[in-house]
Amino acid sequence: MKRDSVSVGIIGFGTVGTGTARILLENGALIRERCGFSVALKRIADLDITRDRGIRVPDGVLTADARALLNDPDIDIIVELMGGIHPAKEFLLEAVRQGKHVVTANKALLATEGAGIFAEAERAGVEIGFEASVAGGIPIIKVLREGLVANTIVAVYGIINGTSNYILTRMTEEKVEFSAALGEAQRLGYAEADPTFDIEGIDTAHKLTLIASLAYGIPLSFDEVYKEGITKITAQDIGFAAELGYKVKLLAITKASDGGVEMRVHPTMVPNEYLISKVDGVFNAVYVEGDAVGPTLYYGRGAGDMPTGSAVVADIVDIGKSIVHGAARRAPGISPAAASRNGIRKMEDIESMYYFRFSAMDEPGVLSRISGILGACNISIASVIQKGRRIGGSVPLVVLTHRARERDVLNALREIDALSVVADKTLFIRVEGNEE
Amino acid sequence: MKRDSVSVGIIGFGTVGTGTARILLENGALIRERCGFSVALKRIADLDITRDRGIRVPDGVLTADARALLNDPDIDIIVELMGGIHPAKEFLLEAVRQGKHVVTANKALLATEGAGIFAEAERAGVEIGFEASVAGGIPIIKVLREGLVANTIVAVYGIINGTSNYILTRMTEEKVEFSAALGEAQRLGYAEADPTFDIEGIDTAHKLTLIASLAYGIPLSFDEVYKEGITKITAQDIGFAAELGYKVKLLAITKASDGGVEMRVHPTMVPNEYLISKVDGVFNAVYVEGDAVGPTLYYGRGAGDMPTGSAVVADIVDIGKSIVHGAARRAPGISPAAASRNGIRKMEDIESMYYFRFSAMDEPGVLSRISGILGACNISIASVIQKGRRIGGSVPLVVLTHRARERDVLNALREIDALSVVADKTLFIRVEGNEE
Repeated sequence: MKRDSVSVGIIGFGTVGTGTARILLENGALIRERCGFSVALKRIADLDITRDRGIRVPDGVLTADARALLNDPDIDIIVELMGGIHPAKEFLLEAVRQGKHVVTANKALLATEGAGIFAEAERAGVEIGFEASVAGGIPIIKVLREGLVANTIVAVYGIINGTSNYILTRMTEEKVEFSAALGEAQRLGYAEADPTFDIEGIDTAHKLTLIASLAYGIPLSFDEVYKEGITKITAQDIGFAAELGYKVKLLAITKASDGGVEMRVHPTMVPNEYLISKVDGVFNAVYVEGDAVGPTLYYGRGAGDMPTGSAVVADIVDIGKSIVHGAARRAPGISPAAASRNGIRKMEDIESMYYFRFSAMDEPGVLSRISGILGACNISIASVIQKGRRIGGSVPLVVLTHRARERDVLNALREIDALSVVADKTLFIRVEGNEE
Repeated sequence: MKRDSVSVGIIGFGTVGTGTARILLENGALIRERCGFSVALKRIADLDITRDRGIRVPDGVLTADARALLNDPDIDIIVELMGGIHPAKEFLLEAVRQGKHVVTANKALLATEGAGIFAEAERAGVEIGFEASVAGGIPIIKVLREGLVANTIVAVYGIINGTSNYILTRMTEEKVEFSAALGEAQRLGYAEADPTFDIEGIDTAHKLTLIASLAYGIPLSFDEVYKEGITKITAQDIGFAAELGYKVKLLAITKASDGGVEMRVHPTMVPNEYLISKVDGVFNAVYVEGDAVGPTLYYGRGAGDMPTGSAVVADIVDIGKSIVHGAARRAPGISPAAASRNGIRKMEDIESMYYFRFSAMDEPGVLSRISGILGACNISIASVIQKGRRIGGSVPLVVLTHRARERDVLNALREIDALSVVADKTLFIRVEGNEE
């Protein structure tokens, strides 16, 4: 007899766990109507089972013992929403060994330990759903695995960390410095007390690791992602960028170039006329270019109880269909044995346009010495902004380059920063857009 | 033994047929790698089998006889890309009766005859894929059926006709009139010789019919969509809209309100700060708001051989998974028996803000008479622009209203247009955005 219901246990009753439970309780009838089967929320495990989360959970659902869910033969799908590596990893692997499917929002775990997890899941014949681990409610994993399955992926550019995007947006709109914008984000709950993962690009790199594996069939390679955060960006740089027609965004970038795959996270100057430059505040957006479909963009909330819960429930329903209709492994996924022909490119080998802000002493001949070094390193200048005078002091000298190689840039800056007429380490930001 | 290949026959070797064939030929190995099975392009039928489409099709694939595909027991999936109602409908139904799955880009056929077609498909146990019928390469059907399955849909706003959007974009950027922009679109191949379907909102309404059925579980109801095209919009209106902070876009709108579903296509003033207002040229975008996920937006090319082919092949692969893994009907679809609790709202009952351009005689007391009638019809004024003087002639008088009911607006305009101090029929555009 065909089943008409699947049974779910949630481990971790925090923000996303609460959102997920709320959706299953409030939209359960709608989901049943749409899909022809019910999703039964059987158990929720959390160490704290007394705090009021503002939703009414039926009696007997809450437990402080995650193992009660893992060992419950009636539960088909374990939803891991506790976050962190331990004991999330152990719980997840135990669920897989028990033959249960898993849905998780845990990008840190998958990006760093995913190879082993996906291998276990393949052995056990169960699915791992992770839509909620990238870009919150935006169904970007489904888009990459299914919607654009016909495409060779040309490039992916993502704003996938709401905290960083909020900080950069406030720095742009209010002309405040990084520390002030970070403080505001913390007061509003958009940034954690320890914001390192968000502002140093680590969270973004976790998500990029998953995106790149799906886009290019490469193994999960978090360690090989180039990671640069937003802490060095000043209000002055954002002002110069605006003057040049750009916004500064923390982008996750992966693209195929010269037979390799680039994976990098860094502040990027994006032309004002690009749609992604208009994505502000805590919102996320992912630009995906395919060889057939051309440019596409997906926009929405990248975090929060209900948006992320929306993605969790979409995964539950997809896996539910596999259970009810008796077929598994519907979409191309991250194969533990991903044997891609694509190598991963070293950061020194990538090419980009660049913004440099030199701290130049206000003396004759400085521009000539700097531009001489750039020229000798094969870096050609597209435009220059020099303003203000401060005899005996340093002034910002801004240079926008044509396309250059990162290795050449690093060499040039090493030489320039050693000049006596350069007062401080040069700030540089990579620039996207068409060359003029 | 598990199958490792599915077989496809394409009927209609025009633009999209060629794009689909090209993708299957060029990205076939990639698709096999991602999905674990091959998609074999067995036959292509078209009346013209001699014209050079710029791709090399293997010998024996081309035929002028569509029935050769329909009667071929080895073909699993018929891809209908001929367009129009007849004989597309007959071919499609014959394929279904032969137990073949169908993929189609034919929104006109599905929007007007879909009820019968989906009923036949359900009886025959086959799937109808129609991702390519809405918004070209943007996987919006998959997003609505699967990605946002957990959400009660609050509203959908779509720019889903590239021709109209191109014309409005050119009118905005170049300040030219409708007829000049249409001529340019025709020269560039963005508009047909007879552009009626595009500029009168009919094509948009076909697509909206499919979207609304998926979003709200209502039967396909093309006849009940309110349809208003862009032919009355002048460069002057676009100028006034810009002055007020808006862009004019042809929107497809469906939303739940007062226990009913609105379905309407009309030029709409969209605030400049909305992301969808930045979607220009032939690009499409669909804004979907869900109760859990909040606001989301999906952007990309809405037409063209390769973008639309990308959507066709995604459907082929999805159905291929059903065939290979032996399960059907994966996603909630358009049920012929859709027994929704939602009625469809009459256009007179909807509420909106409005832009009016009155052709007012330049005489004392005109504003007072017009505003008096608006007030008596429960329409309250948000702002007024009156410029220029032409004693004895008419000048444009622009009024932006607060939220009002369409029925009251129609009544008020009937009365105002009959005034002797009003020289011409009043032009009105519905306005989206937050009330001030």
